[in-house]
Amino acid sequence: MRRWSDGGPKGITFVVSAPSGTGKTTLLQRLRERVGGLRFSVSYTTRPPRPGEEEGRDYHFVSRERFFQMVQEGRFIEWAEVHGDLYGTPKVNFDGLGEEDLLLDIDPQGAKRIKEMVRDAVLIFILPPSLEELERRLRRRGKDSEETIRERLKNAKKELDQIALYDYIVVNDDLEEATLLLCSVIRAERCRRKRVMEVKVRDGQDNR
Amino acid sequence: MRRWSDGGPKGITFVVSAPSGTGKTTLLQRLRERVGGLRFSVSYTTRPPRPGEEEGRDYHFVSRERFFQMVQEGRFIEWAEVHGDLYGTPKVNFDGLGEEDLLLDIDPQGAKRIKEMVRDAVLIFILPPSLEELERRLRRRGKDSEETIRERLKNAKKELDQIALYDYIVVNDDLEEATLLLCSVIRAERCRRKRVMEVKVRDGQDNR
Repeated sequence: MRRWSDGGPKGITFVVSAPSGTGKTTLLQRLRERVGGLRFSVSYTTRPPRPGEEEGRDYHFVSRERFFQMVQEGRFIEWAEVHGDLYGTPKVNFDGLGEEDLLLDIDPQGAKRIKEMVRDAVLIFILPPSLEELERRLRRRGKDSEETIRERLKNAKKELDQIALYDYIVVNDDLEEATLLLCSVIRAERCRRKRVMEVKVRDGQDNR
Repeated sequence: MRRWSDGGPKGITFVVSAPSGTGKTTLLQRLRERVGGLRFSVSYTTRPPRPGEEEGRDYHFVSRERFFQMVQEGRFIEWAEVHGDLYGTPKVNFDGLGEEDLLLDIDPQGAKRIKEMVRDAVLIFILPPSLEELERRLRRRGKDSEETIRERLKNAKKELDQIALYDYIVVNDDLEEATLLLCSVIRAERCRRKRVMEVKVRDGQDNR
């Protein structure tokens, strides 16, 4: 299909981050169903699986001991401690990128490190309509204690400070609309001229 | 909807260009039906209307005399002669941009001038799958003489030289797929962080 392309296909690295309670999991599930050619990077974590989560699909669940062993072996492109649990993105997920694009579901700390290493990475932040609405959603799902809710809200505000890193913001007010927007970002990035064809820019500027 | 926005809404200027025979007219018609909040800029031209074209919807059709009068009155943001006919984009089309985005359907000469004046403009180039396929399509529609077909192909090659100006490339191989991609570019640009919220970028860089 990319018959105008000069070079071979290059995979795009997408990073999606969102404060908890924003609906990211549902959005990514819908994205997976609707947009092809997207490989979902599975991270390693030391936190226990939540109900419905599957080993190898949602995360690779490992002990802290095993995790630190992997750190020492240099197996992660980035790793971090979030809410007391360890999360790491294995380097091997970037192998063989080409025909497929890669999607990483990680927090702003990790996103920042990926951006430093993969300059062309596209960063997408999913936002709730407002902080008040986020609080309402966290309370409504009723699975967190008051303390955890306060903690999550504090974290959400801290994550928002990192928003300048991101290229796109998808506000999840209406789920169907947000799905459409997220899919659109993936499709549009695949159409960027600099990705479709490498052309000499005559005036020496290429800052978009 | 843009509740996270600091400033008021700012309209985005989209420019779409394509060599003739690429299917741009059909694509733009479908875009108009599917994506709201997009105002289509109607240009002035001195060429006679083609079958099916309507005054005020497709173009404002005027005489060369009237056209040059408007040039003298400074009524165009850009104008140019293409294939012996004059085309101009009236300044008035940019008035009241805000809630709506503006879409201009103009050639690469005009696109270049718009980009110089509207730095934030988003330029989209529609491509046929290949030059051979473009030639086949021009012959198939059977409305041009051999000489005109040769002229159009020569122009297409010249327009392709300008492609480095453009931000996005949509290849129109399959009409439905191309429509989806064009709509996606519009939607994705509306999600760009720098448009959704103005945030201070801490490291002084903001080059995406």
